[in-house]
Amino acid sequence: MQSNDRGRPLRVGVAGLGRLGRRHAQNLAYRVPGATLAAACSPLEDDLTWARTALPATRLYSDYAQLLADDSLDAVWLVTPSALHAQQIVEALRAGKHVFCEKPLSLDVAECERVVEESRRFSGQQVTIGFMRRFDPSYHDAFDKLRAGAIGRPFLVRSQTCDLNDPDGFFVRFSAGSGGIFLDCTVHDIDVARWLLGKPRATRVYAAGAVALHEGLREFGDVDNGVAICEFEGGKLAMFYASRTMAHGNDTSSEVIGTAGALAIGRVPRTNRVEIYDAHGARSECTPTFFERFEDAFLIEAQAFVAAVRARLNGTALGATTDAGQGATLEDALEATRIGDALRRSLQTGQAVTL
Amino acid sequence: MQSNDRGRPLRVGVAGLGRLGRRHAQNLAYRVPGATLAAACSPLEDDLTWARTALPATRLYSDYAQLLADDSLDAVWLVTPSALHAQQIVEALRAGKHVFCEKPLSLDVAECERVVEESRRFSGQQVTIGFMRRFDPSYHDAFDKLRAGAIGRPFLVRSQTCDLNDPDGFFVRFSAGSGGIFLDCTVHDIDVARWLLGKPRATRVYAAGAVALHEGLREFGDVDNGVAICEFEGGKLAMFYASRTMAHGNDTSSEVIGTAGALAIGRVPRTNRVEIYDAHGARSECTPTFFERFEDAFLIEAQAFVAAVRARLNGTALGATTDAGQGATLEDALEATRIGDALRRSLQTGQAVTL
Amino acid sequence: MQSNDRGRPLRVGVAGLGRLGRRHAQNLAYRVPGATLAAACSPLEDDLTWARTALPATRLYSDYAQLLADDSLDAVWLVTPSALHAQQIVEALRAGKHVFCEKPLSLDVAECERVVEESRRFSGQQVTIGFMRRFDPSYHDAFDKLRAGAIGRPFLVRSQTCDLNDPDGFFVRFSAGSGGIFLDCTVHDIDVARWLLGKPRATRVYAAGAVALHEGLREFGDVDNGVAICEFEGGKLAMFYASRTMAHGNDTSSEVIGTAGALAIGRVPRTNRVEIYDAHGARSECTPTFFERFEDAFLIEAQAFVAAVRARLNGTALGATTDAGQGATLEDALEATRIGDALRRSLQTGQAVTL
Amino acid sequence: MQSNDRGRPLRVGVAGLGRLGRRHAQNLAYRVPGATLAAACSPLEDDLTWARTALPATRLYSDYAQLLADDSLDAVWLVTPSALHAQQIVEALRAGKHVFCEKPLSLDVAECERVVEESRRFSGQQVTIGFMRRFDPSYHDAFDKLRAGAIGRPFLVRSQTCDLNDPDGFFVRFSAGSGGIFLDCTVHDIDVARWLLGKPRATRVYAAGAVALHEGLREFGDVDNGVAICEFEGGKLAMFYASRTMAHGNDTSSEVIGTAGALAIGRVPRTNRVEIYDAHGARSECTPTFFERFEDAFLIEAQAFVAAVRARLNGTALGATTDAGQGATLEDALEATRIGDALRRSLQTGQAVTL
Repeated sequence: MQSNDRGRPLRVGVAGLGRLGRRHAQNLAYRVPGATLAAACSPLEDDLTWARTALPATRLYSDYAQLLADDSLDAVWLVTPSALHAQQIVEALRAGKHVFCEKPLSLDVAECERVVEESRRFSGQQVTIGFMRRFDPSYHDAFDKLRAGAIGRPFLVRSQTCDLNDPDGFFVRFSAGSGGIFLDCTVHDIDVARWLLGKPRATRVYAAGAVALHEGLREFGDVDNGVAICEFEGGKLAMFYASRTMAHGNDTSSEVIGTAGALAIGRVPRTNRVEIYDAHGARSECTPTFFERFEDAFLIEAQAFVAAVRARLNGTALGATTDAGQGATLEDALEATRIGDALRRSLQTGQAVTL
Repeated sequence: MQSNDRGRPLRVGVAGLGRLGRRHAQNLAYRVPGATLAAACSPLEDDLTWARTALPATRLYSDYAQLLADDSLDAVWLVTPSALHAQQIVEALRAGKHVFCEKPLSLDVAECERVVEESRRFSGQQVTIGFMRRFDPSYHDAFDKLRAGAIGRPFLVRSQTCDLNDPDGFFVRFSAGSGGIFLDCTVHDIDVARWLLGKPRATRVYAAGAVALHEGLREFGDVDNGVAICEFEGGKLAMFYASRTMAHGNDTSSEVIGTAGALAIGRVPRTNRVEIYDAHGARSECTPTFFERFEDAFLIEAQAFVAAVRARLNGTALGATTDAGQGATLEDALEATRIGDALRRSLQTGQAVTL
Repeated sequence: MQSNDRGRPLRVGVAGLGRLGRRHAQNLAYRVPGATLAAACSPLEDDLTWARTALPATRLYSDYAQLLADDSLDAVWLVTPSALHAQQIVEALRAGKHVFCEKPLSLDVAECERVVEESRRFSGQQVTIGFMRRFDPSYHDAFDKLRAGAIGRPFLVRSQTCDLNDPDGFFVRFSAGSGGIFLDCTVHDIDVARWLLGKPRATRVYAAGAVALHEGLREFGDVDNGVAICEFEGGKLAMFYASRTMAHGNDTSSEVIGTAGALAIGRVPRTNRVEIYDAHGARSECTPTFFERFEDAFLIEAQAFVAAVRARLNGTALGATTDAGQGATLEDALEATRIGDALRRSLQTGQAVTL
Repeated sequence: MQSNDRGRPLRVGVAGLGRLGRRHAQNLAYRVPGATLAAACSPLEDDLTWARTALPATRLYSDYAQLLADDSLDAVWLVTPSALHAQQIVEALRAGKHVFCEKPLSLDVAECERVVEESRRFSGQQVTIGFMRRFDPSYHDAFDKLRAGAIGRPFLVRSQTCDLNDPDGFFVRFSAGSGGIFLDCTVHDIDVARWLLGKPRATRVYAAGAVALHEGLREFGDVDNGVAICEFEGGKLAMFYASRTMAHGNDTSSEVIGTAGALAIGRVPRTNRVEIYDAHGARSECTPTFFERFEDAFLIEAQAFVAAVRARLNGTALGATTDAGQGATLEDALEATRIGDALRRSLQTGQAVTL
């Protein structure tokens, strides 16, 4: 737990107050030592109404430019639509703010590259992309074990992002905007694989998919179940699976295989420590959505970002252990998009894509 | 697996062809190398009709005396009603047969003692009581680990025998004859506890119970859920639980705790290696009855008995490892009944019973 | 998560800054919306030094009387030695404070009764005893399922508190002061059993024990492994196990069995969602101590207490769901001590104790 | 279990008495009702010496032609080197024998096709290729659940064959002869996938691999870890993983995902029902090799083959349920080789291979 949280708190402004934005806002308001939620921003009146009662005394803006113009803010927290991320990050950097931005950086590789390029001019400012799995205590424990040599040299990651089926197929309408299943879901697994394997660059990918339930996806060239292989430099490998049609819940798991053992994270997506014994057998209920599964990760991610920026502000260094858990950089996010984009092209062409 | 199965096969006659008797008969007929099912016996015409089609060429008798008079038989296999066991064992010994008898030896301690006494005159003949758990591969593996020192010095066993609820309460009618839940069910756990703890003698027991569903048991002084504590010489302990009202299946499990670790056997009563992921969660189906759970144990128990008797006949010795797995002796069965009977008295009086 | 946390925050003063006290203090300081850690108290200079750096601006006292005299405080939080609890609760009530007190209320039944009696005069003040398992998300989920009828009528609880062995036997010296294994450890299981079974009164108990490793306990009449049976009114039952000699970690688990199913909480004491596959097999690391196992529970417990008191202060009612999760009352704590004390007497006499 | 096993027993001759051949021979000799192990054949004197003591009265041959010339035999059981399978099957058919042959049919697609072609002339004779997983009770249970609609329409199989690392790399020398990891290991998973998905034809495959430990494989174009994707007609998919470098044991598992649920078989490769709790955590030991994992499957496979041939001989039909469990046909084996061969080519070229 936090030891010494004295010193000036970090003043944060959240942009975007949808479901995930509200969680971030409340975490920053009440559960992140060293941070003050000083402002929030949304173009939607409903969001601002919610903010007035659910958040502590916080300045509210309807326009992102106003938020950036708030000189009291040290950092902005972007939980806005994905299509806005790249531009908003650049604007925030130019306004002198540290930036936390939900994934993805952008669905467009070139746009990712432009942000990376631009950010080089602002090396004094922290920019973190929200690949929250890195902060999940179990993922982090596996990462630490890996670094400690528990399984020898890791060479293969298997990782999946599988969502409970939504019979309404609400997500079908967003397929075009989401970039498809690999850029929307697998991008998390790509980041996990690179993080666990030492951040190698991908050399070749292959993808295939099936439409199991949501026929409407076909017109977007998308699928509701996708599988993929990714080869990295140095002979490392990853296998990915993404699904939007699970019957039992959100089943997010990863496995890293090394020369002396393997580590699996979340193999059975049990909600908690309760087991039920009844006519259905011996069973565990499953985590319904990524919200329940990664509730702690979203909080720890926020605490880590705040700690990192405060260490910059206070001129202190974070320990090596803390470094290990640091979030995804813009370069990581660029690479995740580059691989996800190649998977999409492989799915469409039926051919392996060389990177 | 069997190595050399040459030499004269053991000729076995089965007495009792109810559900469990039929299983024993088929095992002996088809699955026990070195044994020949030479005869079977039942007073019920239905059983004999079944035997004519389901068993290979086998002499059939309607009377136990006829079976014993069959001079070609080396051994008899008693799967008869419990009340007959003691007398039939003695008669079989007097007729020169080796004897396998299903548990219990008797519900009456004095009668058990008489059989033990009588059997001393027939030390050349094998008598084994069918506490089949000792032959279940998992129980046996735990036993071997224990002997190899894997958990230090064992001092506590927790063991349970829990049956799927039978809504018809068929078993209620047999409560009087069964000796109640501790003599009918817990007797298995008592034998397991003594076997795993080095066959100590019990010094004091305490029992309590509840009638959860089957009110009819009250008139017999019986319960459908019973809990018990058993103290052994040398400061060793056991806790028992027996139930006839499980919703999920037959849940038979045991745990042995030592000074350097613990071993649990059958903690989740999964039927097999299949896991189901659906709207009920992540689940395993459970073993419905002891028949499915201990199918292998019944077979291995028969193979071990036959191997032991053939070793006597052939004048060869069984190895130490095989010895370790040998079945319960009459003395073991006497002690199990003595403890089970004391538990019944404790349940009735609400007082600890000193042995 | 918290919805509206406006309104005056609750000002809390913590008494006792040992290991557990520090955790409570930090929770109240940083992680409990609606609470302000306004003061802390310890007679030890080391504790106060720690508080000066680890806690936010907090008034520090070396004397409990000073803390009670601090008129700005709404509530006191007692994490002091057990022997002081009863008297300190009474003094806090007389000083007009709401009180949270770590378990146990007292090891002496008569003293518990005196506190209960005295507290009747202060019905406007909240008093909660810290049986934190009630606030563990898994225990709470089981409780909710039980109330929703998921397993029919519950009639049997099995519950255990098993600690990782401390080879130094540090705890042996405290055996006399702790009241022995049943009053120190099993008291949690007693509270869980009563909570899950509808708060029945105990009618009879029986206990036995073994000294597996720590011979020094014998002079205190204590054991390092204890087993017990508790009968409640209405034919309900509980089995308890407590150990101080586990090889694998803190293994705290409970099971509640009903007429239509069973719920197990914490059956495998896995630390997190990581599984390791290596030469030792397929394994999960285990929670080392109750600190890691119940980290969330300590926090939620504090949040619930603060929410409850603030609802009193603001004249609002807590919802039924929240009520369900409310902590142990003084009456609950009295009953837990009464049963634990009877178990201790049963262990010493070898006889069942009727309550 | 067997019901009526009267009628003439099937006389079987085993060819090949290596490790697996010996197991088949002993199963047929002692554990398959309705079968007689009448002859065995091996060119190695050691094997015949073993057979003289370990098998019952059995005619022994050193030459396969002699075995085929034994007119008393109804069936031959081929457990010979893979390179001989195709020719030996054809010869056995021409000699009028029913044939059971261990997998693979052949590593060469054209040769597989020739055997299929030739076998059309002998439709009265049973030919089964030994993909034993179909007979494993857990695989079979999953298959039955699938057919009963338990998970809706199945569309994705994930399946793996992972062996405990052999530090000596004994298998490296056999890489050329084995056809590489996909034809040697994944061929089982291919058969499982097709069996569970309704025997669809493959349309496109992609493979990649890594050499984690056994550098010697590179000269054969082989890898010690391989991953693959297989697309089938009708939009069905499979993902495969094969490894020769596991630290924990033989980890063979499969998962079938449908529109209404998923079934996993063997997700944790636990040896038995024993769990160990010690300083390493809570753990299960893992099955060391496929021999232990599939001991039952090899036996049930033999029982099923014998039952099927005897039903032909006796002019009786096997029930639908039994049909469901019947073994792989020559056509299945051809398709498995075709896919495995395409995976090998994909691995070598880095391109998807269209079938």
